[in-house]
Amino acid sequence: MAAKSCQEGHPTEAFGWAARDHSGVLSPFKFSRRATGEKDVAFKVLFCGICHSDLHMIKNEWGISSYPVVPGHEIVGQVTGVGSKVEKFKVGDKVGVGYMVGSCQSCDSCHDDLENYCPDTIVTSGGKYHDGATTYGGFSDIMVADEHYVIRIPENLPLDAGAPLLCAGITVYSPLKYYGLDKPGMHVGVVGLGGLGHVAVKFAKAMGIKVTVISTSPKKKQEALEHLGAHSFLVSRDPDQMQAAIGTMDGIIDTVSTMHPLFPLIGLLKTQGKLVLVGAPEKPLELPVFPLIMGRKIVGGSSIGGIKETQEMIDFAAKNNITADVEVIPMDYVNTALERLSKSDVRYRFVIDIGNTLKN
Amino acid sequence: MAAKSCQEGHPTEAFGWAARDHSGVLSPFKFSRRATGEKDVAFKVLFCGICHSDLHMIKNEWGISSYPVVPGHEIVGQVTGVGSKVEKFKVGDKVGVGYMVGSCQSCDSCHDDLENYCPDTIVTSGGKYHDGATTYGGFSDIMVADEHYVIRIPENLPLDAGAPLLCAGITVYSPLKYYGLDKPGMHVGVVGLGGLGHVAVKFAKAMGIKVTVISTSPKKKQEALEHLGAHSFLVSRDPDQMQAAIGTMDGIIDTVSTMHPLFPLIGLLKTQGKLVLVGAPEKPLELPVFPLIMGRKIVGGSSIGGIKETQEMIDFAAKNNITADVEVIPMDYVNTALERLSKSDVRYRFVIDIGNTLKN
Repeated sequence: MAAKSCQEGHPTEAFGWAARDHSGVLSPFKFSRRATGEKDVAFKVLFCGICHSDLHMIKNEWGISSYPVVPGHEIVGQVTGVGSKVEKFKVGDKVGVGYMVGSCQSCDSCHDDLENYCPDTIVTSGGKYHDGATTYGGFSDIMVADEHYVIRIPENLPLDAGAPLLCAGITVYSPLKYYGLDKPGMHVGVVGLGGLGHVAVKFAKAMGIKVTVISTSPKKKQEALEHLGAHSFLVSRDPDQMQAAIGTMDGIIDTVSTMHPLFPLIGLLKTQGKLVLVGAPEKPLELPVFPLIMGRKIVGGSSIGGIKETQEMIDFAAKNNITADVEVIPMDYVNTALERLSKSDVRYRFVIDIGNTLKN
Repeated sequence: MAAKSCQEGHPTEAFGWAARDHSGVLSPFKFSRRATGEKDVAFKVLFCGICHSDLHMIKNEWGISSYPVVPGHEIVGQVTGVGSKVEKFKVGDKVGVGYMVGSCQSCDSCHDDLENYCPDTIVTSGGKYHDGATTYGGFSDIMVADEHYVIRIPENLPLDAGAPLLCAGITVYSPLKYYGLDKPGMHVGVVGLGGLGHVAVKFAKAMGIKVTVISTSPKKKQEALEHLGAHSFLVSRDPDQMQAAIGTMDGIIDTVSTMHPLFPLIGLLKTQGKLVLVGAPEKPLELPVFPLIMGRKIVGGSSIGGIKETQEMIDFAAKNNITADVEVIPMDYVNTALERLSKSDVRYRFVIDIGNTLKN
């Protein structure tokens, strides 16, 4: 049992899998969650996606992890209880929780439905609640969260393949909208065909966008064109292909989180084109300034999305039959899955079948 | 006399000062301009500013100069003749020409009044007209230009101190508008207090913006606050000052064209803040990605402005009594002025009194 004093107001027994140290190995873990407050929704977790940032948290690669870490922030399940002041949900509803379970609710970002940019965001896993208790993520049997941070999952959206949309989906949907790359007929590049990239292709296509996948690996061409339905494919290491595509794109969603050159990507943009980075390499990238100036181009960033927009994204996904491509795994496969994920050996997202396979 | 065959259709004798090689020294030069075509405006040059990019062209520092180079693209004067189809101007009008005298007039950029982003822009000095003839700039007695690229100078705008607005002015006005940094009450930083920076302060102030000058040199504080009326001043090398200003700015106009760190500037921006680069360092700058992502911030570029916007800028300047701070010099001082400019020894722009001091 977790016996930290700050967990005292958390009387509800819970069970999950946690990392105890930076070895990266998860093991079963008993802990507790808070009682269902008047604005809280309690739900049984059914599925939870594994995101690359879970890997960072588990191994303390960002240096901010406080063990034990119960990972998981692509969580879907079914409501088991609601507080007296909950208005949006009732027992039995299908719901989800993404990267955050709280924010200050008083800053400009919170007022603008951009809780994701609130400086006091409470992240779903490895964060701290206002009472100082550690937040435990979705690799667990139950969740309790303020209804404001809970997303309604439409009836027709599969829960397993829908779960990753709560992080990977909103991370690419939000910049497509914010940077105005959502107009039918536009041409958008997607760099990197992983968990984020493959759903970026699907969202952009559903918006009526022409999508070009840009990858270092020629092997992904068939997958991009035939399976995901991208309109074209560029091997970023092929100068002839890149040259032929210069100045053709309205925008690019760049999902790559390792070091990579921006110069060729900026070259692919039309005048006033937008290169949006959603993956964060550890070190600074090289920014060539002249091509930015000469084409009034921008390089921007984007981080997940606000709660209102996450709901909009999920509704859009359900309407357009967008889900992630997932490999559903049992709970006790998680350590193998994490090892495979660290080698990018997944097509494209692991989702743990918590509801059926997490055994206390 | 210039005797190149491609100048044959250019029968009008002209006189100016030109660089003959990369030594950077200008000397008197006889050449010719085209006859006044049906859509052309001919004018007697009265004043011409000296821009830092003239220095690059004169010394062939961009490797694109074709000698002789007659510099000057901040040109004002009085109309002496107009072609039969000219609609906007008549003899006697005060007019100006900035960085460009032509573009393709058929691409998307041209259609959108963004001739400055046309891939076939004809630059005013050191470029090529469609007939292959070299373009000669404003360090000369007369100019001939298509009326589309000619700006009307409002009566109340001083010609000497108004000339630099045609390049320096539009270079900072355009990004303030395009990036939405023109809303009263906003807070905008201006990095570098030179030819561009000092007019950026004036334009932003006239738009009702709170302006903070950011400089490596504490010596410029008094000048920025008392003379230019900036609201505050930050020494970029003072960590305490920079720390105290974190997250306070809606945008920054960065006029510095030497290598400098972007990380501290990005830190000054609020969520969704915009760092706009208008100076182009030769080598790539280091771009930290994490702070861009976490605040949905952007780094963008901007290059001068379209003709319609340049007219709007000049009208705005006239209405708000905005001019550059200039040191008016005689033509034969130009080589000394260029030497001083290369050492940033000017406050803030040299303007040559062509009308009174250029002697054939």
